[in-house]
Amino acid sequence: MKNILAEIITIGDEILYGQIVDSNSQWMSAELDKVGIKIVRKTTIGDTEEEILNILTEAESRADIILITGGLGPTNDDLTKPCLVKYFDTKLVMNEAALTNLTSIFDKLGKPVSEVNRKQAELPETCEMVPNNMGTAAGMWFDKNGKTFVSMPGVPHEMKLMMTDFIIPKLQKKYSTPIIHHKLVKTVGIGESDLAEIIVDWENNLPENIKLAYLPSLAQVKLRLTAFGDASKQVENEVKQQIASLKKLVSKYIYGYDKDQLQEVVGQMLLKSNQNIAVAESCTGGYISHLITSTPGSSGYFRGAITPYQNDIKVNMLHVNSETIFEHGAVSEETVTEMAENVRKLYHTDLGLATSGIAGPGGATPEKPVGTIWIAVSDGKKTTTKKLQLWKDRELNIKSTAIALLNMTRLRLLEK
Amino acid sequence: MKNILAEIITIGDEILYGQIVDSNSQWMSAELDKVGIKIVRKTTIGDTEEEILNILTEAESRADIILITGGLGPTNDDLTKPCLVKYFDTKLVMNEAALTNLTSIFDKLGKPVSEVNRKQAELPETCEMVPNNMGTAAGMWFDKNGKTFVSMPGVPHEMKLMMTDFIIPKLQKKYSTPIIHHKLVKTVGIGESDLAEIIVDWENNLPENIKLAYLPSLAQVKLRLTAFGDASKQVENEVKQQIASLKKLVSKYIYGYDKDQLQEVVGQMLLKSNQNIAVAESCTGGYISHLITSTPGSSGYFRGAITPYQNDIKVNMLHVNSETIFEHGAVSEETVTEMAENVRKLYHTDLGLATSGIAGPGGATPEKPVGTIWIAVSDGKKTTTKKLQLWKDRELNIKSTAIALLNMTRLRLLEK
Repeated sequence: MKNILAEIITIGDEILYGQIVDSNSQWMSAELDKVGIKIVRKTTIGDTEEEILNILTEAESRADIILITGGLGPTNDDLTKPCLVKYFDTKLVMNEAALTNLTSIFDKLGKPVSEVNRKQAELPETCEMVPNNMGTAAGMWFDKNGKTFVSMPGVPHEMKLMMTDFIIPKLQKKYSTPIIHHKLVKTVGIGESDLAEIIVDWENNLPENIKLAYLPSLAQVKLRLTAFGDASKQVENEVKQQIASLKKLVSKYIYGYDKDQLQEVVGQMLLKSNQNIAVAESCTGGYISHLITSTPGSSGYFRGAITPYQNDIKVNMLHVNSETIFEHGAVSEETVTEMAENVRKLYHTDLGLATSGIAGPGGATPEKPVGTIWIAVSDGKKTTTKKLQLWKDRELNIKSTAIALLNMTRLRLLEK
Repeated sequence: MKNILAEIITIGDEILYGQIVDSNSQWMSAELDKVGIKIVRKTTIGDTEEEILNILTEAESRADIILITGGLGPTNDDLTKPCLVKYFDTKLVMNEAALTNLTSIFDKLGKPVSEVNRKQAELPETCEMVPNNMGTAAGMWFDKNGKTFVSMPGVPHEMKLMMTDFIIPKLQKKYSTPIIHHKLVKTVGIGESDLAEIIVDWENNLPENIKLAYLPSLAQVKLRLTAFGDASKQVENEVKQQIASLKKLVSKYIYGYDKDQLQEVVGQMLLKSNQNIAVAESCTGGYISHLITSTPGSSGYFRGAITPYQNDIKVNMLHVNSETIFEHGAVSEETVTEMAENVRKLYHTDLGLATSGIAGPGGATPEKPVGTIWIAVSDGKKTTTKKLQLWKDRELNIKSTAIALLNMTRLRLLEK
């Protein structure tokens, strides 16, 4: 099958000079890759006519699809539209649909459409308008000798909606892109190489049309299955079957799929089993509570947390026995066990979670170097504990500990 | 003065296909911009010989300086080095300094240097080695007709150290780059347009050689002063004088400069005045404690926090009067005042901080829509409170509230 080639052009001085990060082009590449369009080049240029016209000529010679973002604002330093008019040898005309959209946006703000903004509804005569449901700058679609040029605003949420609702479906139709099905399998609690060892036979027996990629991130490994085929339903079923076999091998490490987040999955498990939790976190300093409460609806299973950052607060607020801390230290199995049990009792929850450790850079002793961290989950009958020996880096320690404790909670909930 | 032009080339399929974000090129652009080198283009291509050779030719025709990252790993799909050998018509020879570096890295790991890795010390004969103090892939510097090509590994911390320690100083010397001095002035508690109105005369009276840029981000505005001149000390002094005048106008909004973070600045103020804090956070769910404890050494002024996510926890753990909640609601000035005062008393701190609000999407009432949030700071004598009317978005509400409360704390500390 012939590859369909695409090129991405990002226009804007603020990106060229490093004032803002270009997050658009990564998102666009990933979306195009998903539908089987091959990206050949990504280019960032500044807001100058010469550069814009040059890159359009260059890109046309290399790719079938040229996607352009940026430079569509209402001010004089936004040059993309006049350059497109020049490049396609056309002229600007008022586009009624674009004007209607613009007017309705200003109506909502209770403002009249200014002359400057009105000009945003003037589009090149030879283009098809790409609707912008989130902002004032319309997109533009040009066909030229079988090639496609699309110009979009640089504002990420405007661009993303145009791409998913309009541009990608239209490109798939125009170029009859191959059928590709992606599925992410998300694992936690196992490293990349250990995982690879367990699933090596499964991986080697994957059919020709299914590819596997390992995508490791902090304390987690994602497996991406990419399947190619002729019929959408058939491809999906093939992937489902393979995942069923995979599950037999590594079931307890798989916490979710695609966009699932560990803290959301744990929250759903709590909701379903009608249980709730409280957290006592020392070295993680509020991060675990923050992760849990980032999920809307978390008040359905999260009753609260305490961060006893000093030993006397552990004793006075959390009722940890001062002798436990004196004998074993704050970073110990004994202390973290009392923390988990006590937060559970004080907050009247089904489960109590706790962390205590040395996040670094300070606080280490020869026996307890930076990265020594204890975690615990208690349900009143049993307390599960674990000692983690992590990194030299404070941020990595905090984030890895949160994942480890959420995973410990997940495993406890699976037991029941 | 003639502009010195640079181009950045990023090589790697994983970036081209959107599997990872290219954070390198933004960092490099910003660093080059700081020393007065003008970036003209940034390009990402895949690991193919044809693309690499093409882009080198193209870039040479446009720029004085061509900076390349990626494709220097030890495996066969890393093609940058063989392409450079071809492009500069040279051959690989063993570089003794690179081999010594490589050997010392493997010694530390207690491993012998494998044949595959040994090849990483072979460099093109005509290049100068750029030392890599963080990894096994050496950088390469080529001079050609007054133009410079530098190839670096794609691993961010390796590339950054090479750039700051070796490449940028060498480029500044070779091209006698102009003297440019940047200073960031960081403000909080005032919007961009209000700020602009207050400082309009100051801005209009800036000398020709000093430029101002507004860099707004969530609940903060950074002002960047960029000064050009002949002598480094003189330029620095000019900027200092301008900032002194600026301070007279907007002193209370300026919390820091350059890399200062609001939570660090507040921490330093607490340390200096020998005071400590505790936090009771409801709608922010642990995020403020997390921000504070992200700073190493925060245990010197942070005694702990409590997240009473349910009303009965506010009553039982934080001793908020249940009648207060019943009469005024959890999201009220009365409740947040008791939260701030009580956490201060219970944790025995100088200051108590508190938040209570509706982060969304659920929990709203007609009187209290999503984004209604109360914050408070108490020192036992006086409690300062403020009602925020923020966004529809949960994440934005949590983050904006954290900044507003840290700023309220900063202002209270300035009063004393």
